[in-house]
Amino acid sequence: MRWWGWGEDGHDAPLPDAAVALLREELGGEPGTPRGPVALEEVRLPGPALPAAARAALVSALGEGGLREDHAARVEHAAGRGYPDLVRLRSGEGLSAPDAVAVPSSPDQVQAVLEACVRERVAVVPFGGGTSVVGGVEPLGEGFAGVVSLDLRSLNRLVDVDPVSRLATFEGGMLGPRLEAELGAQGLTLGHFPQSFEFSTVGGWVATRSAGQASTGYGRIDELVEGVRLIAPAGVLATRPFPASAAGPDLEELVVGSEGVLGVIGEVTLRVRPAPESRRYEGWSFRTFAEGADAFRVMEQAGAAPDIARLSDEEETRMSMALASSGSRMERLGKAYLRARGHEGGCIAILGFEGGADDVERRRVRAGALMRAGGALALGTRPGASWSRGRYHGPYLRDDLMGRGVMVETLETATVWSNLHALHDAVGEALRRSLSERGTPPVVLCHVSHLYPSGASLYFTFLARQDADEPLAQWRAAKAAASDAIVAGGGTITHHHAIGRDHRPWLEAEVGQLGVELLRAAKERLDPTGVMNPGKLLPG
Amino acid sequence: MRWWGWGEDGHDAPLPDAAVALLREELGGEPGTPRGPVALEEVRLPGPALPAAARAALVSALGEGGLREDHAARVEHAAGRGYPDLVRLRSGEGLSAPDAVAVPSSPDQVQAVLEACVRERVAVVPFGGGTSVVGGVEPLGEGFAGVVSLDLRSLNRLVDVDPVSRLATFEGGMLGPRLEAELGAQGLTLGHFPQSFEFSTVGGWVATRSAGQASTGYGRIDELVEGVRLIAPAGVLATRPFPASAAGPDLEELVVGSEGVLGVIGEVTLRVRPAPESRRYEGWSFRTFAEGADAFRVMEQAGAAPDIARLSDEEETRMSMALASSGSRMERLGKAYLRARGHEGGCIAILGFEGGADDVERRRVRAGALMRAGGALALGTRPGASWSRGRYHGPYLRDDLMGRGVMVETLETATVWSNLHALHDAVGEALRRSLSERGTPPVVLCHVSHLYPSGASLYFTFLARQDADEPLAQWRAAKAAASDAIVAGGGTITHHHAIGRDHRPWLEAEVGQLGVELLRAAKERLDPTGVMNPGKLLPG
Repeated sequence: MRWWGWGEDGHDAPLPDAAVALLREELGGEPGTPRGPVALEEVRLPGPALPAAARAALVSALGEGGLREDHAARVEHAAGRGYPDLVRLRSGEGLSAPDAVAVPSSPDQVQAVLEACVRERVAVVPFGGGTSVVGGVEPLGEGFAGVVSLDLRSLNRLVDVDPVSRLATFEGGMLGPRLEAELGAQGLTLGHFPQSFEFSTVGGWVATRSAGQASTGYGRIDELVEGVRLIAPAGVLATRPFPASAAGPDLEELVVGSEGVLGVIGEVTLRVRPAPESRRYEGWSFRTFAEGADAFRVMEQAGAAPDIARLSDEEETRMSMALASSGSRMERLGKAYLRARGHEGGCIAILGFEGGADDVERRRVRAGALMRAGGALALGTRPGASWSRGRYHGPYLRDDLMGRGVMVETLETATVWSNLHALHDAVGEALRRSLSERGTPPVVLCHVSHLYPSGASLYFTFLARQDADEPLAQWRAAKAAASDAIVAGGGTITHHHAIGRDHRPWLEAEVGQLGVELLRAAKERLDPTGVMNPGKLLPG
Repeated sequence: MRWWGWGEDGHDAPLPDAAVALLREELGGEPGTPRGPVALEEVRLPGPALPAAARAALVSALGEGGLREDHAARVEHAAGRGYPDLVRLRSGEGLSAPDAVAVPSSPDQVQAVLEACVRERVAVVPFGGGTSVVGGVEPLGEGFAGVVSLDLRSLNRLVDVDPVSRLATFEGGMLGPRLEAELGAQGLTLGHFPQSFEFSTVGGWVATRSAGQASTGYGRIDELVEGVRLIAPAGVLATRPFPASAAGPDLEELVVGSEGVLGVIGEVTLRVRPAPESRRYEGWSFRTFAEGADAFRVMEQAGAAPDIARLSDEEETRMSMALASSGSRMERLGKAYLRARGHEGGCIAILGFEGGADDVERRRVRAGALMRAGGALALGTRPGASWSRGRYHGPYLRDDLMGRGVMVETLETATVWSNLHALHDAVGEALRRSLSERGTPPVVLCHVSHLYPSGASLYFTFLARQDADEPLAQWRAAKAAASDAIVAGGGTITHHHAIGRDHRPWLEAEVGQLGVELLRAAKERLDPTGVMNPGKLLPG
């Protein structure tokens, strides 16, 4: 992954001129002048500060070549991939950095590194793909003798497959594409495809309670995990892949979502299933977001939901159609078709079905009937194919927009169906108010992308002219306004991005004071000296 | 519930003479002479020992009439409904008993009772329906100034229903039948029907990670719980019913299965669904248990499982057919039918479908096709109706058998599909060996009754002549042998009965030393003086 943005060079797809002009109009003025990232060597980092004894202990734990201290390695592990991370990386200013990067090649080396860090009072930041958008891999070493990033990507073995029980065990540092390739070679799939899929690890998914684009069908990562092996300073906690158990509280659920503050996720046992022989992604239109959400609810509660279910609100539909507009005759015909049926200004939905060919057909017929009964208009597979092509594209577009002086950020929540629209309105209003007050009125887009019997997620994207002088203050104002609105409005502070550094101030509102104390009690038991990922998850 | 056994008087269905004769033959001799329970007033309890100050504090917390100290109340709360409980109750010997029974009428009174008990060093045993079969409500007060049972059955309000989000909130003391009646009045159901359904509470289900007879379809209680309110000595821990969240570890999963050792389950928010308009329970036959388990696995992994799926092994099939035998012409015809198709000595399965009429039809056709492909023979709805009639009958039959000097006990586990038969054989062998060594060879029956993508439960029933002199030692020997075999054989020590007192010695083998320490850390934070249900769940 390139150090200042998303993915690899060569994947960029710069916005066409018409889209840039549209954005200028929507955002109420000219964004800043296009500006690329500084050169790697110009990135300013705090000087490395690892005491000699700590350095020696780490080299001893890792062997030759296992400890990287060069500028490039420190920059690559200096931040995740949230908007404030990218602002700081591109400018080369305001970054923290690990004093060194530890690259263990075995679980034993992980344990040895933790022991060395406990002994030498060095903070440890577990680092999988480094794609956190909530500051989860920020190297924070205050109060410690130093801070190291623990890069886990060499722990990438497929440990075991049990095809009869449909279970597979991987080491935590396994990247998404290789995991699917290993399973695919045996005719299996996990089916977990977060937007970060190409660059994130299975350990990271588990540590952050990740949800994938197909989680409505395949289940969230917390539903797919059947066993974990946590390497903690106090020892190893292993939960076993029983299909179900009544043997007390489920300790696996303490590890899932622990964000590196309890230990390192060394191994994960996951439910897998046969790789789909058939895939069908369809587009549908609703007159309104409310109509679409109702139809999604009915479909989900009937047990008829597709694997992928995504419904854009009116504003997201309008903007994505406008930005993608080519002015072609086909497009004009499409618009006329929608207008004639009263769907002008409506909402686009994507439904995706994966599985055996018969299964896909059976399920899509059933879902389609419920969609039509709910007021939907079928748009065929073209919008679905377009969604599928662009499913991992968002973060590349963000790099392009940031280069044009546009602030672009996402945040997400979930709530019960009966509260969905009130929360949708409250968060949108908070973002519009807070950014308008600063003179940079935003465009706020939203979609539903994960369905549950009792509710759904809301995923917001907002764009505004970047405040060139104080981009981080601008971001903080919007983030705080939205987070306050989420908590006050009965949503969870995060549906799948995790807490990290950015959501810490709102955790107590979610789990209560006693809940925070319970998490602290778990941490004190597993990580008595507190070296594991300080400054994350738990409030200060 | 009658104090010495199960349910209410008048529900007994004594075994016919032919069945008694069969049992005599199967168990290798005459069981003991028929023997009823002693009279209530003959039950010997340790004298009440509540210090005056503690008594006064409790009366002050509960108001007049909230503290019961009479012999009947103490006997009714002296034990659960496991085999060793019933042995002691029927003989009136060897029981512990609460010094008093606290009956709070509001959550505030629960909190006041806990405060009084902390102050006065009195142990508190939360008591819902009192149907634990693992000693979960045993009043153990060693090291405390006294022990009270906290009877929660007056906390039985329906707090809230959100029909759009399909959520309902109940107080923890709500009994099963009333819960379903309250939901039924709104056209809803929870669908949670453990064998104890008629006499157990929703708080008890949550505290013990209960599974119901229809949990293959409706989900276990841990899957149905969306929010809990735990009243602990250290305060209230409330988790909110978000449909999903990535805000750190899922603390709800610490409360579910906490068996009263962390606090009292004051309220539960559950997923509900429309009451089924149609129900269909069918019987099927397989040539062997292995064939049936394979077909169940295929059906479950295809997402085609029924709501109720139950497969008896050869021995359970043989015994249940023999015990129910009437010698009628119809029965002889049925046997001839099975013989002609190579299914003599095979296994009976029950499949149950519930829901909308169309849904039931669609699902049963799909499941039926997979069953036939797996070698099953359809037996129509008669065996299903028979199962349905007797679904809550087992514990009544146990009372009858115990009155005839028969030891009868159940235990259960779960494991992955690839290990199912090895574990089935190992546990059966352990029971046969341990009881045969004592001169009381058992009959060991088993069924699969809960399906998961990765595995299934195994539910064992075993019968033997009761050792009249040392019935508890006999039970302990069998229980220990089976539990050792489960742990060594890769099963969970309990799939839905919980840990309680009886499974404590095997918890560490399941969750590891660090796992036990994590549970202790949670307990220390929520219950610093350790008054909550001592001697349960956590190893001594």
